[in-house]
Amino acid sequence: MRKLQLQGYGTALPKKAIHFGKQTRYRVSQDENQLHLAVQAAGRALAKAKMTIDEIDCIVSASAVGIQPIPCTAALIHEQLAKGTDIPALDINTTCTSFITALDLISYPLEAGRYHNVLIISSEVGSLALNPKQKESFELFSDGAAAMIFSQSHDEQSGIIDSIQKTWSEGAHATEIRAGLSAVHPKQYSEATKEEFMFDMKGKQILSLSVKKLPQMFYNFLAKNDMTTTDLDLVIPHQASRAMPLVMEKLGIKPDQFIDLISEYGNMVSASVPFAFCQALEKKRIRQGNKVLLMGTAAGLTTNMLLLQL
Amino acid sequence: MRKLQLQGYGTALPKKAIHFGKQTRYRVSQDENQLHLAVQAAGRALAKAKMTIDEIDCIVSASAVGIQPIPCTAALIHEQLAKGTDIPALDINTTCTSFITALDLISYPLEAGRYHNVLIISSEVGSLALNPKQKESFELFSDGAAAMIFSQSHDEQSGIIDSIQKTWSEGAHATEIRAGLSAVHPKQYSEATKEEFMFDMKGKQILSLSVKKLPQMFYNFLAKNDMTTTDLDLVIPHQASRAMPLVMEKLGIKPDQFIDLISEYGNMVSASVPFAFCQALEKKRIRQGNKVLLMGTAAGLTTNMLLLQL
Repeated sequence: MRKLQLQGYGTALPKKAIHFGKQTRYRVSQDENQLHLAVQAAGRALAKAKMTIDEIDCIVSASAVGIQPIPCTAALIHEQLAKGTDIPALDINTTCTSFITALDLISYPLEAGRYHNVLIISSEVGSLALNPKQKESFELFSDGAAAMIFSQSHDEQSGIIDSIQKTWSEGAHATEIRAGLSAVHPKQYSEATKEEFMFDMKGKQILSLSVKKLPQMFYNFLAKNDMTTTDLDLVIPHQASRAMPLVMEKLGIKPDQFIDLISEYGNMVSASVPFAFCQALEKKRIRQGNKVLLMGTAAGLTTNMLLLQL
Repeated sequence: MRKLQLQGYGTALPKKAIHFGKQTRYRVSQDENQLHLAVQAAGRALAKAKMTIDEIDCIVSASAVGIQPIPCTAALIHEQLAKGTDIPALDINTTCTSFITALDLISYPLEAGRYHNVLIISSEVGSLALNPKQKESFELFSDGAAAMIFSQSHDEQSGIIDSIQKTWSEGAHATEIRAGLSAVHPKQYSEATKEEFMFDMKGKQILSLSVKKLPQMFYNFLAKNDMTTTDLDLVIPHQASRAMPLVMEKLGIKPDQFIDLISEYGNMVSASVPFAFCQALEKKRIRQGNKVLLMGTAAGLTTNMLLLQL
């Protein structure tokens, strides 16, 4: 058990909701952006934790796409929340599972006492880069943010029981925004190239690779911890697509055992997992002592599983 | 001491060198890119360590600017080096000090035995985004990459003695590429906006903030470890600018006590620190048992110090 304690959490959504049939999606308007969402979610997490920013000693941005190429996103969030302090700020990125990777990694220096209170923020405005020609992804994504604060703890009953990450780069091009950074500089933007700057998701390829790899990883992970699916109080999966419940079924996770926000909120990229985690806490679906599994597949193809005891 | 062992290291440079007076800079040609440099450096690190990729159990990309907005850079490097394996791949970013932050963070799971052999790669092709109108930065940067492999160790004499990171976001806009990600999408690229997509460095502002903040941080860090500057066998600073030697002088570090590659190679953004580290090893300026200080300021403004015993 890597001991840690959840102190606070908060989310933020754009004001505008749109609908595709029964699916609701949130999209930023002209006067909203990624930084606003991140700062709003972080402010709410601090309020919930009854903490001020001076009590935080590490700010981690765990998002797929950043705000600017330079500096890192955490530094820009720092400017809004923590200007005048010397709190370290850094980015950790594994696309859609960035939050899980960040919590996983940061739990080590947290347990070692290097940091005492860490603020992790995932924020995304994927709607800016959607391709109207790709109906599946165009109707899937929401913008949003979620932030959580974790603290060093001496309680042996609360923390990360185990975690694992695997990357299968056979899927490296199944989810992409190819252009915009060093591979294709924005100076090459034109009518002819514009789709290279948009989100491109090969849903079937991802699903097929996930279904091939995920079950073995999941069963091995549970077995390593002497557990079966019935020992899990709640599974919080990345809200990857409308096929997510099918993947859960394939893993033997019952419908009332996992969070499904696809119809209500869609896929918020890296913000999906912490957003669903915050919802589960807010709606009291989980309580102290519960075993909660965060899991998700991300562009890469990367898969993370992190088993937490609250 | 967070125990770890350096296993191997490698660097890569573009084939083309250009000159500004007595300053040599390396810049990619059409047939070279960030991924090539990263993979070449990583291959050389593996060869030096006499290891194959199957022995690596975590691949970290520690670069300021990525290859694609999605997926993360480590996944794209994974595809070239490790396709068919399930080695986890992730990005850690604090701009110019990304390598130090990555080594700092990853040393915790390495010591805990979560990972045994970690490959950290910093790669940059900053030349793609330089502004010819800003002579100072236009003549400063080189493209390049460096990779290092660190392993779990049980030797009490070798590892990280101490490390620290601070971010002062008063300097958040002193070093920027403002446009290209969510703040300004590439669809807004035009003759009128093109400079927003280029590197913008306010050298004087960075130097003034650094000189104000750095000495106190440096002396406190040494004092905390019961050391003075004379205890340092070598300082490996980020090759930030031609003013770097002046900053070293201000900190009381003697000319023969630090690495200065500014004339020969310039500033390689995140690749500068590991590149200089590799050079120091290759030229036998440091050996087992030596105390080496990695340090640097990065966009943010972030400063990292990491004291290593080889």
